Amino acid sequence: MSLRKIKLRIIYDGYDYHGWQIQPGKDTIQGELEKAIRSLTGKKITVHGASRTDAGVSALGQVGLIELDSPIPTENFPKAVTDRLPQDIAVIEAQEVSEDFDLFSGPKSKLYRYTIYTDVMRPVLHQRHCWHLPGEIDLLAMKKAAKLLEGKKDFKSFASAADKRIDTIRTIFRCDVSTDCDWVYIDVKGDAFLYNMVRNIVGTLTEIGAGRIKPENVVEILDAKDRKAAGPIAPPQGLCLMEIMY
Amino acid sequence: MSLRKIKLRIIYDGYDYHGWQIQPGKDTIQGELEKAIRSLTGKKITVHGASRTDAGVSALGQVGLIELDSPIPTENFPKAVTDRLPQDIAVIEAQEVSEDFDLFSGPKSKLYRYTIYTDVMRPVLHQRHCWHLPGEIDLLAMKKAAKLLEGKKDFKSFASAADKRIDTIRTIFRCDVSTDCDWVYIDVKGDAFLYNMVRNIVGTLTEIGAGRIKPENVVEILDAKDRKAAGPIAPPQGLCLMEIMY
Repeated sequence: MSLRKIKLRIIYDGYDYHGWQIQPGKDTIQGELEKAIRSLTGKKITVHGASRTDAGVSALGQVGLIELDSPIPTENFPKAVTDRLPQDIAVIEAQEVSEDFDLFSGPKSKLYRYTIYTDVMRPVLHQRHCWHLPGEIDLLAMKKAAKLLEGKKDFKSFASAADKRIDTIRTIFRCDVSTDCDWVYIDVKGDAFLYNMVRNIVGTLTEIGAGRIKPENVVEILDAKDRKAAGPIAPPQGLCLMEIMY
Repeated sequence: MSLRKIKLRIIYDGYDYHGWQIQPGKDTIQGELEKAIRSLTGKKITVHGASRTDAGVSALGQVGLIELDSPIPTENFPKAVTDRLPQDIAVIEAQEVSEDFDLFSGPKSKLYRYTIYTDVMRPVLHQRHCWHLPGEIDLLAMKKAAKLLEGKKDFKSFASAADKRIDTIRTIFRCDVSTDCDWVYIDVKGDAFLYNMVRNIVGTLTEIGAGRIKPENVVEILDAKDRKAAGPIAPPQGLCLMEIMY
């Protein structure tokens, strides 16, 4: 037994949580994980998360990193921790990584999916994981605009004003709008994301879908480098972190 | 404007509720509906439900009945009430019915769906609406047993001991087991159901799926007319009331 660095794949329904990051007196994903690991190992171990998902955002592909000093075999770790977690969180993979594994700078890409429901009927069984936008939506316009967002660009207009990073250039490898009956999915894969970037992209694309912004205006919005140029932020519950690729 | 009898189609995610029926100090579907209707009409109006779903059970086809003495047009009623309901409940249809409409004896059939998830991975985004039963499951055995439950039979062995009705003969028109990837669906359509009957049928079918009961033993279980002869009750969150046909 020695100190091991272990990478975890974590999935959760974020609807009832105040986001990933531990906050005193609030239910958070990180908080629940650390509680479960403490119950398993008897030790206070920090779970670092590759992405600090917001309150209400879910994940099927969050990546966590821990330093484990416990006799429990790595392959048994996911089940042992999950048995101690609430039903809406699970650790589904654990893998020992080398000492120099870099959780934050290592990812080659991240994939997010945003889900919209367009039927008039309230999606009572799915409202925790979608944005209900009843009515007609111009999918062709949204697809056209989505393509204009792909590539290496300055996404300052799509970053939260709270994001104070100076370098706002990111690469979107793909931004796809697809549909299945009354569902609309917006998949955004990029090398990295600014704070609230996906939700601001989705809010802008839905303005385009509603005909309030023209798809070609996306170019001007990017050029403005000003959050006020883009559309409003989409609500968190439609967003799901699907995968982080190292 | 006159007193009208109005039939409602109601849908809900029942996971966070203590069932359909009003109980003091507890969140119930009927309670939320009556609160919303009171806020809309200013009147205390009872919403009768065709099926008293249990705590945790959801519905896409609950039928309600109200007597409405309000100028609001029937066709506007669903949206007006739904706007006053929590996100996990909605009224999706309203239809004026004749004075002799019988909510309780009128149904020709009811359809329930029970959902099971068999993959090892915890279904974090779906755990409110399925039973997680990881592992191999003998679907052919379940299908064979399901067919033996069809027809007009005495279902006393599948009724809760709390169900004190003397007539325990019911007709199951169909009991189908189907699959889609890691999901198993059990659809039960019958003329009427005893208390907990669908969940007790599902609990027995999953025992058969696990190889602990033989499919042909269903005949003996029925003949026993004893709750103890059947399998354990399945948990409520997998059950959804799909439709009530009048």
